[in-house]
Amino acid sequence: MSTAAPILLTPGPLTTSARTRQALLLDWGSWDERFNQLTASVCQRLLTLINGAASHHCVPLQGSGTFAVEAAIGTLVPRDGKVLVLVNGAYGKRLATLCSVLGRAFCTLATAEDQPSDAAAVEQRLLADPAITHVALIHCETSTGILNPLEQIAEVVARHGKRLIIDAMSSFGALPIDARLVPFDALIAASGKCLEGVPGMGFVFAHKATLAEAAGNSHSLALDLHDQQAYLARTGQWRFTPPTHVVAALHEALLQYEEQGGQPARYRRYADNCQMLLEELGKLGLRSFLPEAIQAPIIVTVHAPQDEHYDFKALYERVKAKGFILYPGKLTEVDTFRVGCIGDVTRHDMQAAVRAIGEALHEMGVVTPSIPGVVTTPTLNIHFRA
Amino acid sequence: MSTAAPILLTPGPLTTSARTRQALLLDWGSWDERFNQLTASVCQRLLTLINGAASHHCVPLQGSGTFAVEAAIGTLVPRDGKVLVLVNGAYGKRLATLCSVLGRAFCTLATAEDQPSDAAAVEQRLLADPAITHVALIHCETSTGILNPLEQIAEVVARHGKRLIIDAMSSFGALPIDARLVPFDALIAASGKCLEGVPGMGFVFAHKATLAEAAGNSHSLALDLHDQQAYLARTGQWRFTPPTHVVAALHEALLQYEEQGGQPARYRRYADNCQMLLEELGKLGLRSFLPEAIQAPIIVTVHAPQDEHYDFKALYERVKAKGFILYPGKLTEVDTFRVGCIGDVTRHDMQAAVRAIGEALHEMGVVTPSIPGVVTTPTLNIHFRA
Repeated sequence: MSTAAPILLTPGPLTTSARTRQALLLDWGSWDERFNQLTASVCQRLLTLINGAASHHCVPLQGSGTFAVEAAIGTLVPRDGKVLVLVNGAYGKRLATLCSVLGRAFCTLATAEDQPSDAAAVEQRLLADPAITHVALIHCETSTGILNPLEQIAEVVARHGKRLIIDAMSSFGALPIDARLVPFDALIAASGKCLEGVPGMGFVFAHKATLAEAAGNSHSLALDLHDQQAYLARTGQWRFTPPTHVVAALHEALLQYEEQGGQPARYRRYADNCQMLLEELGKLGLRSFLPEAIQAPIIVTVHAPQDEHYDFKALYERVKAKGFILYPGKLTEVDTFRVGCIGDVTRHDMQAAVRAIGEALHEMGVVTPSIPGVVTTPTLNIHFRA
Repeated sequence: MSTAAPILLTPGPLTTSARTRQALLLDWGSWDERFNQLTASVCQRLLTLINGAASHHCVPLQGSGTFAVEAAIGTLVPRDGKVLVLVNGAYGKRLATLCSVLGRAFCTLATAEDQPSDAAAVEQRLLADPAITHVALIHCETSTGILNPLEQIAEVVARHGKRLIIDAMSSFGALPIDARLVPFDALIAASGKCLEGVPGMGFVFAHKATLAEAAGNSHSLALDLHDQQAYLARTGQWRFTPPTHVVAALHEALLQYEEQGGQPARYRRYADNCQMLLEELGKLGLRSFLPEAIQAPIIVTVHAPQDEHYDFKALYERVKAKGFILYPGKLTEVDTFRVGCIGDVTRHDMQAAVRAIGEALHEMGVVTPSIPGVVTTPTLNIHFRA
């Protein structure tokens, strides 16, 4: 792309490669065999990614990731089921809201926003409430960037004969998930996250046997994954008009993903981005909200400088003028902002982004001592909130 | 676009302009003010198009058009409402299916697939069944291309104090609809139809007072138009990740729509396309399913040649090789195929398309006497089904 577009340091939509965007330039007939092949190729590649071809269907769905999460709960949790929702952030809360709106019985197990969900606590709840049929969790909670211990929780859930629903929206493609090792009924992600496509479709890996039994569960026509999969299997086509350009871009993004070395390579690049981000922020005197041990290399929540000259909106606009789009914080009790590590970006972009943040803070009068080329004023050092 | 992509003669996805597709090349932050302005501009332009700014909200929604139709019924028909669904094709039937899945009481008023819905019959049904609260209809039924008499039906519905829901998916932007003259609670369309954007979002014009009272009606979180509008009004943002590239393309498509002369100009081009299509098909000896009086200039259903050498799949592939994508028929009792008149195409494209159809039929041994340059074999004339 020739335009000087800002780099998105946001957790999706994110910065995509020029090659992926070029794939948007073709109009596709949604009934055409070539488009059917594109859809089949996307689904097959996604299933390969999780070693799930034998056990799961990949069901694509129009809309944002939340549409796919709602579809998974509505289709795969029977109307008399009960869901234990693990909550340590906004997206866990949204799972609970979804159950409530859909009329599925549910209960929650909450931990603090800087505390991963705990497999032992899940086990206690399963023992205490035999009515629970399903456990639903967020793999990487985007509201902080915290990583929840999927494997341990999946083991507990399976051992108790319960079903697992995983919202892997912001982790899928970057963190390893193997359907042969992690038993689940549904794992949900979307086009515009770590696969680096453009937003506009989600997909659900649905356990074949579970999906086969799910006819009639759904509260919705558009969000019925059973019907969506049945139609796709019968015709090769999406049930309703697909976002053709978005599908084509995801296909192109998947080809690049594979060429670049798949999940391990994607993880390494993001981890490298994250490491660089944390180091450079540290040099600026800016502190991450999470300890490194539970920080997924997806998005970093940063404590806002506790300085009267600081204002996120002003920082955002100044950093944007320097070519980078930041993301606001989503915590209610602590003033933070967020910086994504994902998308078609490298450690050099992260370095440049933090340099821009440093310069912007300096311009605002929130000066830090460690950015090269910036005149330091030690008496104006940043103070952090407790 | 430099690739020799086929021209889509399909009712959406359709052929878009190069300028519209160029607008897909930018990544947008969904939280960014510039993107909020884009969304606001799209909604404001759409409202202007129907003179609806005073009476209606324009609520954009992720997903295909059907997602928006489901959202409109689920949000705007109270749970104790009853919907009279007017049916003369597949999309009318889908409205009834939606009511059924959503648990809304409904009844249907069906006419034959070549018969428009009838305002007098609607009035009789409203008089006979006072439990009916809403009437839902398809403006242009894409399964045939038939135009239903929206104004007359809207008048009857309003006079009886009932509410109207209009699926204007394939007519919106091409046929005139004025919210000051046609009273309705909801009118639904999508990005990838006569506005000539790419597919991936729908929108609902929802009557302001009705929407304000609709909190809690929806069966779905993702498809709740009340919440979608409230969030948009409060923050300027979509409630869940928007299909940013699709929104940008729709905005660019709307600018071109206005520059080209708006709805009257769009109608004239499509009517011209349709006229040319019918004329040229007639020269080939191919006959339209609908009489011209009820034929909307959107999509034409064509009787299949009743010839043993005819096979739609073979015709489709041959015409595609010549640069045009046709659309299959959707009638159960009559063998037909369809040709769209909409998209960034002109009468010259229609002429070339019918020439391709003629050549393809000739190659298949289904020869017609009237295509220039094709050796005619009068004894092999097409015979039509009765």
